[in-house]
Amino acid sequence: MITLPLCTNKAPLYRQIYDWLKAEIQSKNYKPHDRIPSKRKLSEHLCVSINTIDTAYSQLLDEGYIIAVPKKGYFVCDIDVYHRINVTQQENTLNISMSNLKIDFSPSDIDHHAFPYKTWRNIFKSCFNEFDHSILKRTMAQGDVNLRRELVAFLHSSRGVNCDERQIVIGAGTESSLRTLSLVLSNNTSIALENPVYRKAYKTFEHMGHAILPIPIDDRGIEIEPLKNLSNVAVYVTPSHQFPLGISMPIGRRVELLNFANEADGRFIIEDDYDSEFRYIRKPLPSLQSIDQNGKVIYVGTFSTSIAPSIRISYMVLPLTLLKNYTKICTEFGSEVSILEQRIVAKFIAEGNYEKHLNKMRKLYKDKRGHLIRELSIFGNDIKIVGESAGSHLLIKSAISKSENDMRKAATEKGVKVYPISDYFIGQMLEKYENTFLLGYGALSKIEISEGVKLLYDAWNCGD
Amino acid sequence: MITLPLCTNKAPLYRQIYDWLKAEIQSKNYKPHDRIPSKRKLSEHLCVSINTIDTAYSQLLDEGYIIAVPKKGYFVCDIDVYHRINVTQQENTLNISMSNLKIDFSPSDIDHHAFPYKTWRNIFKSCFNEFDHSILKRTMAQGDVNLRRELVAFLHSSRGVNCDERQIVIGAGTESSLRTLSLVLSNNTSIALENPVYRKAYKTFEHMGHAILPIPIDDRGIEIEPLKNLSNVAVYVTPSHQFPLGISMPIGRRVELLNFANEADGRFIIEDDYDSEFRYIRKPLPSLQSIDQNGKVIYVGTFSTSIAPSIRISYMVLPLTLLKNYTKICTEFGSEVSILEQRIVAKFIAEGNYEKHLNKMRKLYKDKRGHLIRELSIFGNDIKIVGESAGSHLLIKSAISKSENDMRKAATEKGVKVYPISDYFIGQMLEKYENTFLLGYGALSKIEISEGVKLLYDAWNCGD
Repeated sequence: MITLPLCTNKAPLYRQIYDWLKAEIQSKNYKPHDRIPSKRKLSEHLCVSINTIDTAYSQLLDEGYIIAVPKKGYFVCDIDVYHRINVTQQENTLNISMSNLKIDFSPSDIDHHAFPYKTWRNIFKSCFNEFDHSILKRTMAQGDVNLRRELVAFLHSSRGVNCDERQIVIGAGTESSLRTLSLVLSNNTSIALENPVYRKAYKTFEHMGHAILPIPIDDRGIEIEPLKNLSNVAVYVTPSHQFPLGISMPIGRRVELLNFANEADGRFIIEDDYDSEFRYIRKPLPSLQSIDQNGKVIYVGTFSTSIAPSIRISYMVLPLTLLKNYTKICTEFGSEVSILEQRIVAKFIAEGNYEKHLNKMRKLYKDKRGHLIRELSIFGNDIKIVGESAGSHLLIKSAISKSENDMRKAATEKGVKVYPISDYFIGQMLEKYENTFLLGYGALSKIEISEGVKLLYDAWNCGD
Repeated sequence: MITLPLCTNKAPLYRQIYDWLKAEIQSKNYKPHDRIPSKRKLSEHLCVSINTIDTAYSQLLDEGYIIAVPKKGYFVCDIDVYHRINVTQQENTLNISMSNLKIDFSPSDIDHHAFPYKTWRNIFKSCFNEFDHSILKRTMAQGDVNLRRELVAFLHSSRGVNCDERQIVIGAGTESSLRTLSLVLSNNTSIALENPVYRKAYKTFEHMGHAILPIPIDDRGIEIEPLKNLSNVAVYVTPSHQFPLGISMPIGRRVELLNFANEADGRFIIEDDYDSEFRYIRKPLPSLQSIDQNGKVIYVGTFSTSIAPSIRISYMVLPLTLLKNYTKICTEFGSEVSILEQRIVAKFIAEGNYEKHLNKMRKLYKDKRGHLIRELSIFGNDIKIVGESAGSHLLIKSAISKSENDMRKAATEKGVKVYPISDYFIGQMLEKYENTFLLGYGALSKIEISEGVKLLYDAWNCGD
């Protein structure tokens, strides 16, 4: 018998015995079918209690290193030799970030200073308590009923959306909602997308295996003509404020689009109303869903821009025509969203805080937008501002005789991040969009906006 | 000119004018290409300021009901007639719930009274403050780096998992993680599943379009023989505590399974370690991932059972071989999980609270399990208890001469919900599993366990 080097200052005794025996088996000192010492014998040999040996042996039995043969003892199992393959370590794929970033004109960021911390903290306190165990339970796939009820009322009054709480499905962000929708639509549904497009939507549908049809946009939104011959198609649009072009779809085109959907079964419209909360000049346009009478529109929205990007809560209003399929496919699953956060948002809406917050943000963003436009005037005729008075970004089209890439590079060198519209195209960008950049102002202070514009002015040598 | 019935006690004036004109256009009182009154004329006619008329007209222009022709005036647009289709209202598809439910032996519920409310509240307070705006930002797709770091250390010490933080991907629950995994695996990867199986995993892969291969289980876990000829396959297993059978896979089978994966490219193992935290007799078995040297194992875990089902946080450890594909596909997206909850869980682990909580729960569940087994002894030889000493459920196999369906029905009538194992089969159940039920005890108090067992005893007429 091999001597076991027991010591007292580390793992428990049974563990040392287990480790030693396992190593002996793995290194083939004990071979398959060998009998190992009886518990009594080993206990005497090592001067440890038989209970300790028993614990070690039980663990080895459990893990399948040894088997017990009644009246014969313990034998080593025949464990297949484990083969190793050489795997080459992969390169570190972390994204390279701009190290000198000063001003980021990101179109998807918000004003963090305006977040209602105190209100949120108070609502958390009132929602999270040991007397309500429902906050620990997993909720149904569709999401918390309180939040769904609040949304029914809110979406009706603010966007004209007609639905009841059964039609609302809460998701963990727009992409998560679109993934769920992809499961609900039949597999062979093609997805027609505005081009340029909200990339995450495009990528989500592509990854989910749908055929992708990029459709051009004219000055009234997505063109209907290229859709005409399609069946089994869902058309993804952002009619309130086209992302990224900022076009608002007029009623004529809306009706054309709805009529296109009505002309055949298997045609749907996905209305992503992502930033309809922010419109500065007049009241927001009513949603497509509010005009739809035929169960053709799937309405999608999110709290990412209206509360915070970290709040992973989106919502989808399914037409009754799709509800049955949703129920069949998804109700086996639970909700993907923390019930506590759903409750907090529900209360935030119910108590009027959401409305108040939106009013505050609208004023704030309008102010920032005005400031950005004033600052941009130093460019004179070198740039033209495009896009509706809505959302938290605008577009500039430059007449400067530099390539888009050179302009982006020059901005980057000055520490300014701008977003060329070519990034949002599926395939080749049309010439008319060349040298167009998105400037988001949600997260920037007025001082930062001024600084950013000045840096761009220098970068693009407009003063020369 | 039609007279507009203006009143002063409802909507703002401009809104009444807008509503009236819109109605006139929709009802074809103004026809397409008709000229509507000039702003000045209407202002005089209605005795309201020209600004008010301007606001109303701007909204109509915005929405595309009218167009402005320079020097000519405002004309009604040619809006396509909107066609209505009859949609029959769908029946209410809400699930019918047991109205007399007294005791639910659910295998997926937890003890809510043991949740560390106070600690959680304190951690929330310390994570949520206005000086850290990162809690409002959307985090990268892989999840918060703090949580990923904590998981690297925790999974290594508790489960032997070898990885670094780059390999960890945070998801919104196991199904969400499996959906992401489905995107990372190639489209033509078949999914081999233990049969019986964790249904949500099976359904997730099915919905994502993978070919499903149900594989039988013997007393050592999933059988290897039926896998032999498969290529491009990912084998989904629960080796620590097979769900639902409760088998722990011995080392010999584990090595066989790993060797199967190693023998060809495109073979992977998905190790769902869903309740490995709860093992009562000896230390948990080390994970498959800890033995894997060839990048073949995808390790999946969740906080649903170990903290609470409402915490929608799961994690996946990707082998380096799949990381490149993950980066390519998923890094465009953001994380699906609330950053605040990720931070709270990270801190919960970092400060030792998770370890403490697990120890407490382990003791509690062990105690409940013992109690359930003692109570079940009244059945004598009529039932046999099966499944490892682990997790928060056990299985009973009944020798009572009643069909499974009759037994379930009888239990339901007494207000007791039991979970027949047939629910977890893909296709036909094997005869040897007949009349086997899962009894979960996580959420039940000892008194409830006693009551539940007595009701089952009555329901199944064992006393007769």
